[in-house]
Amino acid sequence: MALSSKPYKGARDFYPEDKRLQKYMFGVLRNVAESYGYNEYDAPILESFEIFAAKSGQEIVDDQTYVFEDRGGRKVVVRPEMTPTVSRMVAAKRQELAYPLRWYSIPNLWRYERPQRGRLREHWQLNVDIFGIENYHAEIELLSMISDMFKAFGAKTNMYEIRINSRKLINYILEDYLGLSEQESHDICKLIDKMHKIDRSKFISGIDAVLSPEHKEGQVNEKLLSILEAKRLQDLPAEVMAHDSVVELDQVLSGLEKKGINNALFDVTIMRGFDYYTGIVFEAVDKHLENNRSMLGGGRYDGLVGLFGVASVPTVGFGWGDVTLENFLKLHHLLPDLVNETSLYVCLVGDVAGLADDAINEFRKQGVNIAVDYSGKKLGDQIKNADKAHIKHVLIVGEDEVNSGKFKIKNLESGKEYVGTITELVKELE
Amino acid sequence: MALSSKPYKGARDFYPEDKRLQKYMFGVLRNVAESYGYNEYDAPILESFEIFAAKSGQEIVDDQTYVFEDRGGRKVVVRPEMTPTVSRMVAAKRQELAYPLRWYSIPNLWRYERPQRGRLREHWQLNVDIFGIENYHAEIELLSMISDMFKAFGAKTNMYEIRINSRKLINYILEDYLGLSEQESHDICKLIDKMHKIDRSKFISGIDAVLSPEHKEGQVNEKLLSILEAKRLQDLPAEVMAHDSVVELDQVLSGLEKKGINNALFDVTIMRGFDYYTGIVFEAVDKHLENNRSMLGGGRYDGLVGLFGVASVPTVGFGWGDVTLENFLKLHHLLPDLVNETSLYVCLVGDVAGLADDAINEFRKQGVNIAVDYSGKKLGDQIKNADKAHIKHVLIVGEDEVNSGKFKIKNLESGKEYVGTITELVKELE
Repeated sequence: MALSSKPYKGARDFYPEDKRLQKYMFGVLRNVAESYGYNEYDAPILESFEIFAAKSGQEIVDDQTYVFEDRGGRKVVVRPEMTPTVSRMVAAKRQELAYPLRWYSIPNLWRYERPQRGRLREHWQLNVDIFGIENYHAEIELLSMISDMFKAFGAKTNMYEIRINSRKLINYILEDYLGLSEQESHDICKLIDKMHKIDRSKFISGIDAVLSPEHKEGQVNEKLLSILEAKRLQDLPAEVMAHDSVVELDQVLSGLEKKGINNALFDVTIMRGFDYYTGIVFEAVDKHLENNRSMLGGGRYDGLVGLFGVASVPTVGFGWGDVTLENFLKLHHLLPDLVNETSLYVCLVGDVAGLADDAINEFRKQGVNIAVDYSGKKLGDQIKNADKAHIKHVLIVGEDEVNSGKFKIKNLESGKEYVGTITELVKELE
Repeated sequence: MALSSKPYKGARDFYPEDKRLQKYMFGVLRNVAESYGYNEYDAPILESFEIFAAKSGQEIVDDQTYVFEDRGGRKVVVRPEMTPTVSRMVAAKRQELAYPLRWYSIPNLWRYERPQRGRLREHWQLNVDIFGIENYHAEIELLSMISDMFKAFGAKTNMYEIRINSRKLINYILEDYLGLSEQESHDICKLIDKMHKIDRSKFISGIDAVLSPEHKEGQVNEKLLSILEAKRLQDLPAEVMAHDSVVELDQVLSGLEKKGINNALFDVTIMRGFDYYTGIVFEAVDKHLENNRSMLGGGRYDGLVGLFGVASVPTVGFGWGDVTLENFLKLHHLLPDLVNETSLYVCLVGDVAGLADDAINEFRKQGVNIAVDYSGKKLGDQIKNADKAHIKHVLIVGEDEVNSGKFKIKNLESGKEYVGTITELVKELE
């Protein structure tokens, strides 16, 4: 029986046109990240299970991670996210590295989940992290970078929104202001994280189910729902407003405003799924009605590096998946026309394969990417083939051309023809 | 207990300096491949087990592949090589694609084996394939490209050697000329594949063990050993010389010679491990005495696409691993000095973080990758930090500089200082 030619379920083949788009997107992200002084790193896609079990969050590890035992009995995962890995790498060279350490990577990540729009089993994700800065400058830098990345893709600020919250604030509200237990707080956080995906009534009954009888009888439920309505820091109760985390949120929000970033706002419902966040958390949300969802997210996680037996390092980072980015660019018509890297297709007329070599090499030397048709087919068929391969220009090479040193190039889109020496034609192609 | 900060066994972390080297190597390979009209593609690192079981070769699949069952009961592999995957992708769009189809990729591959010099469990491998050319032009094109890749790295032709053989020739010699059974031939091939890694006596006793009694008594052993001594096509017995495969080998070898490639030679002992090769096979071997091993290999495999239920497509391809390439470049002193992508480190003097923004943005806009020190430490400490981060220039920004629009850059290597407007300094940096 024939083998199936489909890729593994929930994963994508990248044909050249798909890869070209990916390279364009990653190229833009790389440029902006590097303009902020970030260096690229990478790490193995297989990691030990332990480093994810520690802090990634139960749902991700238990239900969504590819875990298996290798032939030596080691429990291995195909990494579902990069944050534990980068923390491991920083810990391994804790003393040698210079801080602030600015790193980025575009790893391939895998999650075992039901494939759906914007969520595949496999994706690539830009990860940007800054290590060694305790104050809000780190958050502002990353959010400015995100804003510059959107700008570099041609996005307008009305196409997306940056929503900012603080885990410190949420913990304070739930545990101190509302007086909930740690378990209640944890469960309420998970509920808030899902609140925009579930019915309002389901959310409210969910809260009821979490709260202990004494808290249900108080005004906890009412107070919580009222806080979740807050649209600005000023909407929070006065007692909450005085908390350190609100000062910090205000520093970040006003810092962004000073930089002219006018689409960042406070959103007390932003949670981010991972258990390791310790401070500011943020998301960017697509404002397009067909794709009103989170595209990227991140925050401060000051405790991860320290899990590897070294002193902890204050860290802020974010991740931006290629699938959500591509959806965003498509919906907002921001994808540029990407052309084939091969700009010239050589049609050989007669038995000139050997004779044509010098000319072909000369084009290559002058920077032209050039494919040769050795099929020996009729010229018309060779040209048809160039067209099918989406190569824009053909170069026709017969004995006359080799002898005279003058060649003809035809633009298959416009039909225009150019005759000249190689150097002249290379200029024409540019 | 603290988590281990080591990467998974036999796999590598790429710190920025390692990633920089990898990007340099891949950049050179990409440039040359694209100059020959090849387009980049990619595919998921997880694949169904079946497509490897079909043709990769028993040892690789049984002993060296990461295989596991996913949560849906599918048998999945972390791909050990790319050839079955690219064949699958071509088969899936057999009719739509334009031939000759020129594709390349630089996938991450995994093999479960004992880590050793030049062989890790994980590596990256350039894969270049041309689909749809039945004749020797395909082999010559790939071997010319390989030669150009070495040249692009600065390698001289005396640093490496290209060794060429033919599976058709070997099959003819073993099955027709020597009259061995299919099983005997298969086992002899596996032995020849290893002959340069084992003792001569072990090799000879290995042959004895494979041959049936009738063949042992004839002159098979002697004839085989004599053929394996052949250094040129002309050293083969006259009867063998007349075989089609020798004509083909001669066309490839003389074609390469015409292109000025003078380090390619016939080597009847080149086998390549994979079972899917059907014609010419080749390797490039490092001639350095400390690393006298195969660096890359490939050949013709006309049957793989056809396994996926479509008409077969003649194909030639090769793979070149990053570990062997890096070893080669290091041993031959071909690695260039690679500099930090971040060329400027901003030291803030006083509380000027907000004030400095415009200047920093202007440097970025003019194409300078710039990192900012928000630590508030003393100037001397900030400069030390830039040095530790291997960033070549520091820019000192205080209130005076912001007000005057004139800034000072210091080259930390030479100690030289430059004062000027941003535009003047950007020119200086270039």
